[in-house]
Amino acid sequence: MLDFIIKYIGFFAAFCTTISFLPQAIKVYKSKSTKDISLYMFLIFTIGTFCWLVYGLVISSVPIMLANTITLVLSFFILIYKIKYK
Amino acid sequence: MLDFIIKYIGFFAAFCTTISFLPQAIKVYKSKSTKDISLYMFLIFTIGTFCWLVYGLVISSVPIMLANTITLVLSFFILIYKIKYK
Repeated sequence: MLDFIIKYIGFFAAFCTTISFLPQAIKVYKSKSTKDISLYMFLIFTIGTFCWLVYGLVISSVPIMLANTITLVLSFFILIYKIKYK
Repeated sequence: MLDFIIKYIGFFAAFCTTISFLPQAIKVYKSKSTKDISLYMFLIFTIGTFCWLVYGLVISSVPIMLANTITLVLSFFILIYKIKYK
């Protein structure tokens, strides 16, 4: 039972930190305004999630691959919008 | 040697995704402007990192605790600024 709760907290944490980039991606897509968004945040974060994806592939971890593929797509999307609409 | 490279990729990935929130925190602190930042992103992300921290504490993982304490402080800081300076 406790094991189930611990796993559930972990899955919920991963779900939140992964999906959280979606509302930001929708916001920049709709507004085309990115003045307050930090270029360095999304540049460093995109590099980081790419490395996480490589790490997940190398150690054959499906959860790491899955979560970071989604986050990579979303953060790269926001980064492109940040570069395009300064 | 390969093990070292794999670990290095993992550490570098964790470093990037953790530290990336710092330039965004500095940006909102300096500009006091958060119009383009998504409230839901930082709300969901803060909840997510809090759950990661709880998960790290329960499974006694120092890297998870350390990385998520830093990210939690930074994302909570950005969230507070987002609520304060709409």
